[in-house]
Amino acid sequence: MTLENRHLENEYYTQAEHGDYELFDLGDFELASGQRIPDCKLAYQTHGKLNQKKDNAIVFPHMYSGTHRDMEMYVGEDMAIDPKEYFVIMPNQLGNGLSTSPHNTPPQDGGMGNFPDVNIEDDIRAQHKLVTEEFGIEEIELVLGWSMGAQQTYEWAVRYPEMVKRAAPIAGTAKVTPHDRLFIDAHMEAIRSDPAWNDGFYDDPHAVITGLKRHAQIWSVMGLCTQFYHYEERAWEQAGFTSVEDLMANFWEDWFLRMDPNDLLAMAKKWQHGDVSRNTDGDLEAALGRIEAKTFVMPFEEDMFFPVSDCAHEESMIPDSELRPIPSLWGHFAMFGIFEEDKQAIDDNIRDLLETPV
Amino acid sequence: MTLENRHLENEYYTQAEHGDYELFDLGDFELASGQRIPDCKLAYQTHGKLNQKKDNAIVFPHMYSGTHRDMEMYVGEDMAIDPKEYFVIMPNQLGNGLSTSPHNTPPQDGGMGNFPDVNIEDDIRAQHKLVTEEFGIEEIELVLGWSMGAQQTYEWAVRYPEMVKRAAPIAGTAKVTPHDRLFIDAHMEAIRSDPAWNDGFYDDPHAVITGLKRHAQIWSVMGLCTQFYHYEERAWEQAGFTSVEDLMANFWEDWFLRMDPNDLLAMAKKWQHGDVSRNTDGDLEAALGRIEAKTFVMPFEEDMFFPVSDCAHEESMIPDSELRPIPSLWGHFAMFGIFEEDKQAIDDNIRDLLETPV
Repeated sequence: MTLENRHLENEYYTQAEHGDYELFDLGDFELASGQRIPDCKLAYQTHGKLNQKKDNAIVFPHMYSGTHRDMEMYVGEDMAIDPKEYFVIMPNQLGNGLSTSPHNTPPQDGGMGNFPDVNIEDDIRAQHKLVTEEFGIEEIELVLGWSMGAQQTYEWAVRYPEMVKRAAPIAGTAKVTPHDRLFIDAHMEAIRSDPAWNDGFYDDPHAVITGLKRHAQIWSVMGLCTQFYHYEERAWEQAGFTSVEDLMANFWEDWFLRMDPNDLLAMAKKWQHGDVSRNTDGDLEAALGRIEAKTFVMPFEEDMFFPVSDCAHEESMIPDSELRPIPSLWGHFAMFGIFEEDKQAIDDNIRDLLETPV
Repeated sequence: MTLENRHLENEYYTQAEHGDYELFDLGDFELASGQRIPDCKLAYQTHGKLNQKKDNAIVFPHMYSGTHRDMEMYVGEDMAIDPKEYFVIMPNQLGNGLSTSPHNTPPQDGGMGNFPDVNIEDDIRAQHKLVTEEFGIEEIELVLGWSMGAQQTYEWAVRYPEMVKRAAPIAGTAKVTPHDRLFIDAHMEAIRSDPAWNDGFYDDPHAVITGLKRHAQIWSVMGLCTQFYHYEERAWEQAGFTSVEDLMANFWEDWFLRMDPNDLLAMAKKWQHGDVSRNTDGDLEAALGRIEAKTFVMPFEEDMFFPVSDCAHEESMIPDSELRPIPSLWGHFAMFGIFEEDKQAIDDNIRDLLETPV
């Protein structure tokens, strides 16, 4: 069963596009805000097999605008996350289009412009139910994720410190920074300012194309780094694009234009309010101090959203942690592994962490 | 005489707001594009007196969204640019609201949405006429400017190398980078997407408030640096703002909301096409190699528009040059001198340059 046809049709959010995945039934799910999502479903995919001792699990959530599929390149028999060895659970965020989301929930049931505000901790509580109730797992070998996946990794490690043996927050922060909040405001406003968005009540997600294009445009400014765009280095050519215009159309717009505007906004709001210190009455040091996991904090050196200094600041508050910055001209998008050496560097760090005894 | 009442009233572009200034008559001015501006006026202000030998002139153009007034803080008896010693000419960009601009030109004469595309070289040719014809100056002690002022500085030094003895391009580039072009696209689109903009034909500039607010929002993301916005350092408090929201309203919006949308767009387009290599058939090295001025290239270390690496790349092609990076949490806006040490560091470098014999 999928949620594909529960409301607005969108060929992007289908098994044809995303491969097989499962739905975990969260029932009438109460959010941190006190609001509820009735008949809430958490979509997830798994790789490998859970062993008898149930001690080989990895949880690998995804970033903004993503699904489980986008992180699959880091799972493979030649990779650190080897499905012959590990049982890899890849949960989809609430609101991402595969789990219960604005576009697949009818407005009268709280969908579209009526979708409630979801927080990172709601995702982690949902994932915790999946991990413990569906699979009976009590300890997780590694939780890792990129960007909003890093937010989820931090929330896992702070909320359930006794369960998480290793953590790799990649290019993301435990507490959203004021600068990120401004950036998120700007790219949300790019969508919401399109009259076709109509406060979240549209008949066709693709009619919001002007807003989605503006959204892609703002991402193009902040998503990579200035050096990537240098006219002599022409890094876009190494990535297979003939020009910056080609990159704009066939990378940035191609990525976002197929998606549902409300689903993007649901994730953006969640990102904008990510803060593990809600677990400790606003005390970030206390929250990060709770982490028991061996933690590799892995910022990307040219990341314009999450500069190394912001990540290092948080790393300094985590007891058993190392800062592992990764250089890449792809800025925040190094994780896409479009340059093979970026993917290799990330995989090498994951391997180091998995091989570190805890 | 001013252009204040030639078309749309806007209390921002008045002598009441900007102090006294002069208008230089460019007549029927032909642009690099081949288009013409009939009855074209260049607004300018001067400080100090031109000496008898006419060898004490400084030319100090301004940045995007600016006027002569915004750089006046760097002219004073206790400053490197001392009006007792120097004759300081502060030209206003074509399109800036005081010189001939979209808002002060009636549409039937090429104003508002009909304003022609102006390039940086048009400004410099206009300024050259002012400097040589109005004042009979043959050599300039120093040309300097910040951001689009740096673009103008480079154009002066490349186009009239024999006239410019010293040059200080501050936080700007001789050739616009692809990344800047994307950023400029995004902030232009913020204005143009407001239905009230109406392709440049509006009755009231302040009706375009939604577009101007979005424009301010995008500037807030790129204009300072992530470290400025750090929630523990709270640099905005040192600058007199109580919160990021207060900074947004009383710095970013307060700055842009009084301005004319078409005037901003005219300057943005000009910025987007800045490129001194048009003087040398696209050969940037040849263009910068023409510079005879002793040149201090002064990037700001945390500038997200013009990173030190982009400025250093250009500096390496200028024969008699030094790279003088200036640290500041204010990113691109260090020039505003809101932190006294930023203003001091900039002034110290200008003093060093003026004291360097050439």
